[in-house]
Amino acid sequence: MKRVERGSFTLPGEAGYEKLTLELAEKWGADVIRDSDGTVLSDEITKAGYGIYSTICVIRDHNEWARRNQDKLQQCFLMTHPATAESGNLTVPLMEDFFEEQFRVNESADSMRYWQVYDRTADTLVDASKWSYDKKRQAVVLEGITPWHNYTVSFLAYRIWEEISMYNHTTNHWDKEHLMQIDPVYPETQAYMLEWMTEWCRAHPDTTVVRFTSLFYNFVWIWGSSARNRQLYCDWASYDFTVSPRMLESFAAQKGYSLTAEDFVNQGKLHVTHMPCDRKKRDWIDFVSDFVISFGRKLVDIVHSYGKKAYVFYDDSWVGIEPYRPSFREFGFDGLIKCVFSGFEVRLCAGVDVETHELRLHPYLFPVGLGGLPTFAEGGDPALDARKYWNSVRRALLRCPIERIGLGGYLHLVEGFPDFVEYIAGISHEFRVLKQLHGAGKPYTCKTRVAVLHFWGKLRSWSLSGHFHETYMHDLIHINEALSGLPLEVSFIDFADVKSGALEKADVVINAGAAGSAWSGADEWKDPETVARLTQWVHEGGVFIGVGEPSAVAGYDSYFRMAHVLGVDENTMDRVCHGKWTFETDRDSAGRVMPRGAHIPARQSCHLTDGRAAVLVQENGNPLLVRNSFGRGWGIYLSSFELTNANTRMLLNLILDAGGEEPDGYYLTDNPEMECAFYPKSRTLVVINNADTVQECAVRTPSGLERVRLEAYDTLIREL
Amino acid sequence: MKRVERGSFTLPGEAGYEKLTLELAEKWGADVIRDSDGTVLSDEITKAGYGIYSTICVIRDHNEWARRNQDKLQQCFLMTHPATAESGNLTVPLMEDFFEEQFRVNESADSMRYWQVYDRTADTLVDASKWSYDKKRQAVVLEGITPWHNYTVSFLAYRIWEEISMYNHTTNHWDKEHLMQIDPVYPETQAYMLEWMTEWCRAHPDTTVVRFTSLFYNFVWIWGSSARNRQLYCDWASYDFTVSPRMLESFAAQKGYSLTAEDFVNQGKLHVTHMPCDRKKRDWIDFVSDFVISFGRKLVDIVHSYGKKAYVFYDDSWVGIEPYRPSFREFGFDGLIKCVFSGFEVRLCAGVDVETHELRLHPYLFPVGLGGLPTFAEGGDPALDARKYWNSVRRALLRCPIERIGLGGYLHLVEGFPDFVEYIAGISHEFRVLKQLHGAGKPYTCKTRVAVLHFWGKLRSWSLSGHFHETYMHDLIHINEALSGLPLEVSFIDFADVKSGALEKADVVINAGAAGSAWSGADEWKDPETVARLTQWVHEGGVFIGVGEPSAVAGYDSYFRMAHVLGVDENTMDRVCHGKWTFETDRDSAGRVMPRGAHIPARQSCHLTDGRAAVLVQENGNPLLVRNSFGRGWGIYLSSFELTNANTRMLLNLILDAGGEEPDGYYLTDNPEMECAFYPKSRTLVVINNADTVQECAVRTPSGLERVRLEAYDTLIREL
Repeated sequence: MKRVERGSFTLPGEAGYEKLTLELAEKWGADVIRDSDGTVLSDEITKAGYGIYSTICVIRDHNEWARRNQDKLQQCFLMTHPATAESGNLTVPLMEDFFEEQFRVNESADSMRYWQVYDRTADTLVDASKWSYDKKRQAVVLEGITPWHNYTVSFLAYRIWEEISMYNHTTNHWDKEHLMQIDPVYPETQAYMLEWMTEWCRAHPDTTVVRFTSLFYNFVWIWGSSARNRQLYCDWASYDFTVSPRMLESFAAQKGYSLTAEDFVNQGKLHVTHMPCDRKKRDWIDFVSDFVISFGRKLVDIVHSYGKKAYVFYDDSWVGIEPYRPSFREFGFDGLIKCVFSGFEVRLCAGVDVETHELRLHPYLFPVGLGGLPTFAEGGDPALDARKYWNSVRRALLRCPIERIGLGGYLHLVEGFPDFVEYIAGISHEFRVLKQLHGAGKPYTCKTRVAVLHFWGKLRSWSLSGHFHETYMHDLIHINEALSGLPLEVSFIDFADVKSGALEKADVVINAGAAGSAWSGADEWKDPETVARLTQWVHEGGVFIGVGEPSAVAGYDSYFRMAHVLGVDENTMDRVCHGKWTFETDRDSAGRVMPRGAHIPARQSCHLTDGRAAVLVQENGNPLLVRNSFGRGWGIYLSSFELTNANTRMLLNLILDAGGEEPDGYYLTDNPEMECAFYPKSRTLVVINNADTVQECAVRTPSGLERVRLEAYDTLIREL
Repeated sequence: MKRVERGSFTLPGEAGYEKLTLELAEKWGADVIRDSDGTVLSDEITKAGYGIYSTICVIRDHNEWARRNQDKLQQCFLMTHPATAESGNLTVPLMEDFFEEQFRVNESADSMRYWQVYDRTADTLVDASKWSYDKKRQAVVLEGITPWHNYTVSFLAYRIWEEISMYNHTTNHWDKEHLMQIDPVYPETQAYMLEWMTEWCRAHPDTTVVRFTSLFYNFVWIWGSSARNRQLYCDWASYDFTVSPRMLESFAAQKGYSLTAEDFVNQGKLHVTHMPCDRKKRDWIDFVSDFVISFGRKLVDIVHSYGKKAYVFYDDSWVGIEPYRPSFREFGFDGLIKCVFSGFEVRLCAGVDVETHELRLHPYLFPVGLGGLPTFAEGGDPALDARKYWNSVRRALLRCPIERIGLGGYLHLVEGFPDFVEYIAGISHEFRVLKQLHGAGKPYTCKTRVAVLHFWGKLRSWSLSGHFHETYMHDLIHINEALSGLPLEVSFIDFADVKSGALEKADVVINAGAAGSAWSGADEWKDPETVARLTQWVHEGGVFIGVGEPSAVAGYDSYFRMAHVLGVDENTMDRVCHGKWTFETDRDSAGRVMPRGAHIPARQSCHLTDGRAAVLVQENGNPLLVRNSFGRGWGIYLSSFELTNANTRMLLNLILDAGGEEPDGYYLTDNPEMECAFYPKSRTLVVINNADTVQECAVRTPSGLERVRLEAYDTLIREL
């Protein structure tokens, strides 16, 4: 196989550092040079024969227009903290809880039609005749209400500081003008944006790819007035920042019913993506997404009309883009770029139906990284950081094709870090080899097909919402991350899919989450057809793996609706007086699937339902890993799943065993710290060491054992 | 104060050991001699001038009559384990899950009218046309049902082995005839029992007190067919063993509506006392209790007509007696006897409206104790056991008057244990002194009045159901046990009481329990009036102490309905994306209320609601002890409460502080391992050492400090 030494790499260039830019473009094999937030490219760079990416943010960089159109800034609903009425009257200041630099009350008549006052103690809407707005005090005044009840006011506020700008600004103590975000819901904004986009394309003839730093609506991020609780609410996949009276009216006209403030603030809880939503939110997601596509496509069309490509950055203002909705194709994007910390984000990117998939690697070329620790600064070790991130990303890259990688930030910062420069050269080389291997043909994949079942299904494939470190408390992100690098076919299905044939395409179904969560499924489990279909499917040979509180919902004879299949159920209060089956631990079976170091933290307290299940792991009589024979299939229960190399291998072993495959079959390492992929078309074996120490393994192949020894984090590529 | 050297002590006598019986009666100061289950008294004993207790069990010791009246044995509903239908047909054997020596299917037409088949997957009743009973196979045959759904059969079974007899029998490997329990619901049984009672009284002229080994209906105790899960269900305060077609019909006639099998089996969960019940169960409790009183009184009347007293043993077949129902007086009992392991059981006994309260102390004079460890046998140390039990019981005896104590079992077993004999002599002396002190006047009590708020209120004063070791997983039993010996006025109130003036008689309300439990209150918290009343009461100066998941119920803006008062709420799934207030720990306040060694295990994960509350104890940012100023009162939150001497003192300090009293006020020790009581009328201070090591303390009195040093577990009685 001839090695490709150049291409598929996007380099962040920097004016003033032309020599460095072109040298590193050569060293890292870049074919494209980009600008970044805070850098520009000089003619010397743009004329050097490279493709040129330019980043644009269509809602943020228009402060002059925004200042003249303060009524066309983006908005959202806010709910005041519940206040106790000490008498029949109560005054509720609206902005007491909120960051005054982020929000401004929308006092217009259009807005006030949507305001609501709630008696939270009685959980009832307070009649509008009982409250009025005191503009001077910016407070709602309640009269004739029930003493000693708690009251809240929900109102519309303009967002006067674009959140990503606000975050960078406050984190880095900038002293620049606050950027505002304009709302494309208004015809005037749309006209402005279309004109601006046209003008921009005309003014940037060297640009080959316009990179939309996402589109219009940011994930929700509500800041508070107190430094002791600055981030009141943040959800990467919620739609709270898409609201405006105009959008609400359009929704009502199209859907035939109106939404209220309460539909969004939801008793102050809002609607976290980690829980199922109701029909109304589902409709709202669809409605907003359709709007984002309809207007987004116009911008993409302009870009195309200038002979440029349009890529979208899958981050920040991504709400409404929804790359896993079937209609995503309608945008006409040529590529999608995802910044990645983890393997699941690689799969999230790779799974989108678009021509070019590109990964923005970490670390960014910034002085400090996430969490404020030094990166390209004294005390930082960016080469080690890059190695660790690559370690997470690489195993997913073995499994799925990605077309491009790249970096972002200030290129000059790498100057003091020659080992980083060398490491990136190595990575870019390694990436190009992997891309070539994928190009020749798919990697060897085990036969067992896995379907992850949760409320959102395909729409939230791989990702729960946001990064691993934001969602670590959910078992499923650990499982997704483990799956992202395993030699398995993985799909994400919802509960409608269960009833429309998805089970026929799966050998193993995984349902993992806390009771009431979207990941476990919550009320979806109330549908007897869902339970019956899965029951039959297992009885006929399928394997249902439940983690945490799988299929849990109150109101039935068992708390886990699949308890009869899993052989376990949770110890709920209503069973505190029930006896528990005693059992012996099945150490032989445990030894077969659990590599040394694998462990299952106890998350729930459970009991065996009928005593027949085999308990592979227990702690103080609490079954943590259980396998229950059910017809020709199995139920498998895990109290929790925590991402480690050993546990990842345990998950693979459980799945292979479930699918009737051998945990020590072909193209698997015998060391859980190491993984491998085999590309039959290229007859090439890639072995990776996921550990920070030297490791050895053997890989079984039809022609015998391949023995491999690798330094920490290293990769071996061997033609067999 | 003149010392009383004799009386108030019940000694278990034993025929064949007349000398020992009379010697120990003298040594221990007994005034009464009793028989026990398994012993008899000889004439030499009964004629020795002592009062004579005789134990009778009116439902158990009538096997000859029971054999002739197999249709008048007691019954209960049983539900088969859910079975999955693999087709449209399913055969469900009734007795597969159950202990065949305990149950026999009641196949009569009367019974079968109450049988029910449920589709548990759809949670619907299966029409009777779809099932039939196959008597030969003792199975219910289902036809035309939905495949892959789970089905259960609920049926009536006779109980053919009285449960306490069954337990003793199997535990001790007896080989005696199985005793059956007859049901007084039938006129024939009643006629038999009344005649038997009359005859018994006539035949026992020496008996001065008839001790009813409770009355008719045992707490529920369902045994399973497998030795690996023998005790399927056990609840000390449930009414499942009171069921029969006849009782169900009488209920329907009186209450105007019928109960079904499902009202009892409740999806297989039955109705644990640890959860709230519905109106139907409440009605059933009332109905059964009224019946137990109406017939129980007839037996008591017979006893009285023979010039004897009637005492009731508050255990085992106590269901329907309900000593905390106002109508308990109507039985006419002269005394109530409670066996005690713990202080709360002393208070449970003392609080009953009856003339004589008697405690049966532990250990019983048996070779082995609970759990099978040796007591009066090789390897046993009954004197140490007695000392430890007395240690738990004594602190409650300082707070409330009890008229009598006593022992039970086989007296001859004490012969090898002279230190036990001595220790009991000491205890009986100590008890008589305490009784005298109470007789002279109440002990000094702090001003702060405590009300424990839960679903059952006064009906389940002090006890959750059963013993401490059966209910240890509930915070409230730890709190009740702590309170049982504290110098406080304690009442138990329910949610109706909150709305009818109970708060005016309390300075502190404690609500402690897991979400959904009777102890927390569950759906009772949905009533806005309850929340508003408590809110106002705290605002006007009351203190609400919440432990665990106080006032928790889903569906509102906060999970804890009293979150605004407590200043904390639980981290539920719907708030997983909400920010959390940071805080500093208030170590000064913690130091004021927490003695050395006090600790609060983290049970829940919580957050501050508005950031104003003082966090006295935290663990990894999780607030465990929180005090929130609210109007003139406070909310106090504890993540959990675990019984230890130090934690008991912490609870007292929190309560005193809440009530505006000093944690180092009069008649309190300065050592949490020690407690004291002062009896103003007798000017006597009693100091106890609750620890197993030598301890010292000082007690503040108006005339200065009293310094005390005590050996392990010792008591000091000092006139000031």
